[in-house]
Amino acid sequence: MTLSLDRKRFLDTMAEQARIGGTENDGLHRLALTETDREVRDWFRDRMEEAGLAVRVDEFGNMFGRRPGTCDDAKPVLVGSHLDSQPYGGIYDGALGVIAALEIVRALNDEGIETARPIEIVNWTNEEGSRFQPAMQGSGVWAGAHSLAEEYAKTDEDGAVLEDELERIGYKGDVPAEPREPYAAYLELHIEQGPYLEERGADVGVVTGIVGFSWGAITFHGEADHSGPTPMSHREDALVAAADTITSIRRIPGALGDRTVGTAGYIDAEPNSINIIPDEVTVTWGFRDPSDEIVDEARRRVLEEAEWAAQREGVDWEYEDRMRAPAVEFAEPCVRAVQSAADDLGYDSMQLVSGAGHDATHLHDVCDTGMVFAVSEDGKSHNEAEYTSPEHCYMAASTLANATLRLAEGDGS
Amino acid sequence: MTLSLDRKRFLDTMAEQARIGGTENDGLHRLALTETDREVRDWFRDRMEEAGLAVRVDEFGNMFGRRPGTCDDAKPVLVGSHLDSQPYGGIYDGALGVIAALEIVRALNDEGIETARPIEIVNWTNEEGSRFQPAMQGSGVWAGAHSLAEEYAKTDEDGAVLEDELERIGYKGDVPAEPREPYAAYLELHIEQGPYLEERGADVGVVTGIVGFSWGAITFHGEADHSGPTPMSHREDALVAAADTITSIRRIPGALGDRTVGTAGYIDAEPNSINIIPDEVTVTWGFRDPSDEIVDEARRRVLEEAEWAAQREGVDWEYEDRMRAPAVEFAEPCVRAVQSAADDLGYDSMQLVSGAGHDATHLHDVCDTGMVFAVSEDGKSHNEAEYTSPEHCYMAASTLANATLRLAEGDGS
Repeated sequence: MTLSLDRKRFLDTMAEQARIGGTENDGLHRLALTETDREVRDWFRDRMEEAGLAVRVDEFGNMFGRRPGTCDDAKPVLVGSHLDSQPYGGIYDGALGVIAALEIVRALNDEGIETARPIEIVNWTNEEGSRFQPAMQGSGVWAGAHSLAEEYAKTDEDGAVLEDELERIGYKGDVPAEPREPYAAYLELHIEQGPYLEERGADVGVVTGIVGFSWGAITFHGEADHSGPTPMSHREDALVAAADTITSIRRIPGALGDRTVGTAGYIDAEPNSINIIPDEVTVTWGFRDPSDEIVDEARRRVLEEAEWAAQREGVDWEYEDRMRAPAVEFAEPCVRAVQSAADDLGYDSMQLVSGAGHDATHLHDVCDTGMVFAVSEDGKSHNEAEYTSPEHCYMAASTLANATLRLAEGDGS
Repeated sequence: MTLSLDRKRFLDTMAEQARIGGTENDGLHRLALTETDREVRDWFRDRMEEAGLAVRVDEFGNMFGRRPGTCDDAKPVLVGSHLDSQPYGGIYDGALGVIAALEIVRALNDEGIETARPIEIVNWTNEEGSRFQPAMQGSGVWAGAHSLAEEYAKTDEDGAVLEDELERIGYKGDVPAEPREPYAAYLELHIEQGPYLEERGADVGVVTGIVGFSWGAITFHGEADHSGPTPMSHREDALVAAADTITSIRRIPGALGDRTVGTAGYIDAEPNSINIIPDEVTVTWGFRDPSDEIVDEARRRVLEEAEWAAQREGVDWEYEDRMRAPAVEFAEPCVRAVQSAADDLGYDSMQLVSGAGHDATHLHDVCDTGMVFAVSEDGKSHNEAEYTSPEHCYMAASTLANATLRLAEGDGS
C-alpha cells in the first residue's frame, strides 16, 4: 500500500504557514515564543483539530496531535519538527517537517486508512536556539536532556524569561514535558541545509545519523585605551586576540576531517568605538563532525589557539562550553523504513549524515529515530534565500508518509 | 611675571565637573548633546559668568567666554578644550583643558592683571565623536573644515538628529559658528593619553604637532548559511575576511614607523548568531603617524589586505573613508611660548608629537596654535581608569597659564 499525499493541499498549507512571520524577501522571521510564534501555533492547533487530532500542549509548549490506532495500546509513532525560525531565516527549515506530518494525517483521513499504532504529530518549542539557548530546547526538555526548571529560567537578550514568555503567548501547557508512554519511533523530515543531495542529483535523502557538535564562547579581556597615543607595544587588544582565534576556527577543520566544519558565528566587542582599543571581546566557536573524537579534538585545538592568541596580545581570556551534542547513529528499523519508502516510490535516494542538529538528536535517546532530507537548493539555509522546490518538498513528504505508514503498521521492513 | 594659579580652587573645580556624568568607577560618561552635557554646559556657563566673562554660544553649541584686553582691538588669544567625554571615559580628557582655561581667568582676576590682548576661553562641541561623527566636530565646523548644514544633519545610533539635540539641550546659540575676528593664537592643554612623558619622567609636555590619521570602515558581504551542513569549501564567511583584516591592522604599523599605530576599534557582524555563517561584517581601521606619507601608505596597505582577505574567502567588500586628518606642525611662536613657560617655572619638560587628534588640529587652520600635555598615568585614556595626578594637572595648567599670558601680552618669546 502506498499513501498518496494531496500535493496541492500540502503546498498550499506550506505557503499558508510561511505567511505568518513572512518577510519582504520571502523569508521567515518567527522567533520562538514571540507574537508570530503564538500566531503560527494558534493556526497549527486549528489545523490539527480540523484534522480530528486530539491536541495537547505540554508545560514547555511542545504541541502534540494524536490520531488513534486500531490498537490504541500500541506504542505510537511520532512525526514532526518545529515551526520556529532563525532571525530572517527561510520558510522550509522546520516548517516543512511539521506541515508534512499534518498532511500525512489528512491523507490517512482522506483514504480512511487506520493504522495499528497511534500516530502523533508534533511541533517542538524553540528548535533554533536564536532567542533562547540552547537549540533543540523543547525536544531536549521532553527527552530529559535538560531540566525543566533550568530552561524555564533562560532569558533572551532583553532579559525576558522563557517561562514568562511561554505563559504570555498562552503555550505553557498542562501536560508534563516528558514522554507519557513509550514510543515506537520518531521520524522527522527536514531540509538538508547542505549541498550533498543536490550535488549528487538525488531526489531525497535517507539520513543515517547526525554529526556531533561542540559550541562555546571565548572572551578576551584586554585594556581599553585611546587608539591614537598608545604605542603598539603597550596594547592589550582583545579584538586582535579574537581575530586570531577566528582565523584558527577557519583553519582547524581542514586539518581534521572531510566533513569537519568550524564556525565563528557571533562576536561582540566592547566598547566598540573606532577610537578605542577594544577591551572585552567574545567570540563563539562551533565545530561539527560525524566523529565525536574529531569534535573534541577541534574544541581542544581552538582553546589552545585562544591561549596562544591571548599570550601574544598580553590579554586574559576565559571560555564557556555552551553545548556538546554527541554524534547520533539512527536506529536501523527507521533508516530501513525511510529507505524502503523512497525505493517503493521510485525515488533516487542518497544516504547521508546530517550536518545539522535536529530535534531527532534528542528523540534518539527516547525511541528509534530516523530522518528524511529534502534537497536544499545550493545548500542554503538559515537565510531568506533558503529554497526547496515544490517537487522536492513533495518527494520528501511522500517518503516520510510511507515510512511513517510502515512503522505505524508495525512493519519496519 | 609669573602667574600663579590657585591650586585648591583649580583641583576642586576639576572635581566638581567630574561629578556631572560621573560613573561608579570614578570615570565620566558625558556624551555630546545629552542631558549630562547640558548639565555641565549650564554649570560651565555659570562659572564663566561668575568670573566676569562675556559668554556667547555659537550656532553649533561652541561656548566662548571673553575677558577684554587693554587693547580690545588686538587679536585675542583663545584657550580651551572640550567638556564632552567618551562612553565611560575618564574625567581629565578635555575637561582638564577647559577647567585650566577657566582657572587662568580667575587667577588673572585675582591678581588684577590686565592683558594687552583679550583672552577667550572655549568649550568645543563634540570633540569625542562617539555619539555623532566625526570627532572634533565643533572646532571643525568653526574652523570651516565641515559645513554647518552637513553636521547639523548627522544622526546618532538611535536616529536622533544633531541639530535637534542642540536645540533640545538649549545650546543652539545665535552667534555664527566661525571666527568672528582674527585670533592671535589658540592654546590647548590636554592629557597626553600616551606613555611618553611618564616613561621619561617629564613634568609636562611641550607639543610640537599632531600625528595625521586616517579612519575608515570596511564591510565584507558573504553568504549567511547554516553553520552545520555547509562544507568549509562552500562558505563565504564575512567574519573570517574581517578577522584576517584585523590581524593585518595589527601588523601593518610595525612595518612602517616607530610612531605608527593601527587599530580596529569597531566590529559589527550580522546576523551574529552562533549557528549561522556571518554574511555582513563591518570593521573599522584607524592609522596614525606624524608623517602623512606613512598614514596614506598604511591605509593603502589595509585596503590591499582587505582585497586579499575577500578573495581568499570569496566574499565581496567595500570601504568607506571616514576621516583623514593631516599631520599638524604647530606654529613656532606657540611652541616657544609653551617651552619658555615650562622653563621659567622650572619644570622638566619634553617636546613631543601628539598621538591623538585634538581641537587644536582644526584651530591650526585658523591661527597660530600650540598645546601643553599633562602626564597620563600608564598612558591610559578613553576609559574610566584614566588618571593624571593633581601635581601633574597643576604643572600643566601653570604652563598653559604662563604661555597664555606671554601670548596675550603680545610677547611670544
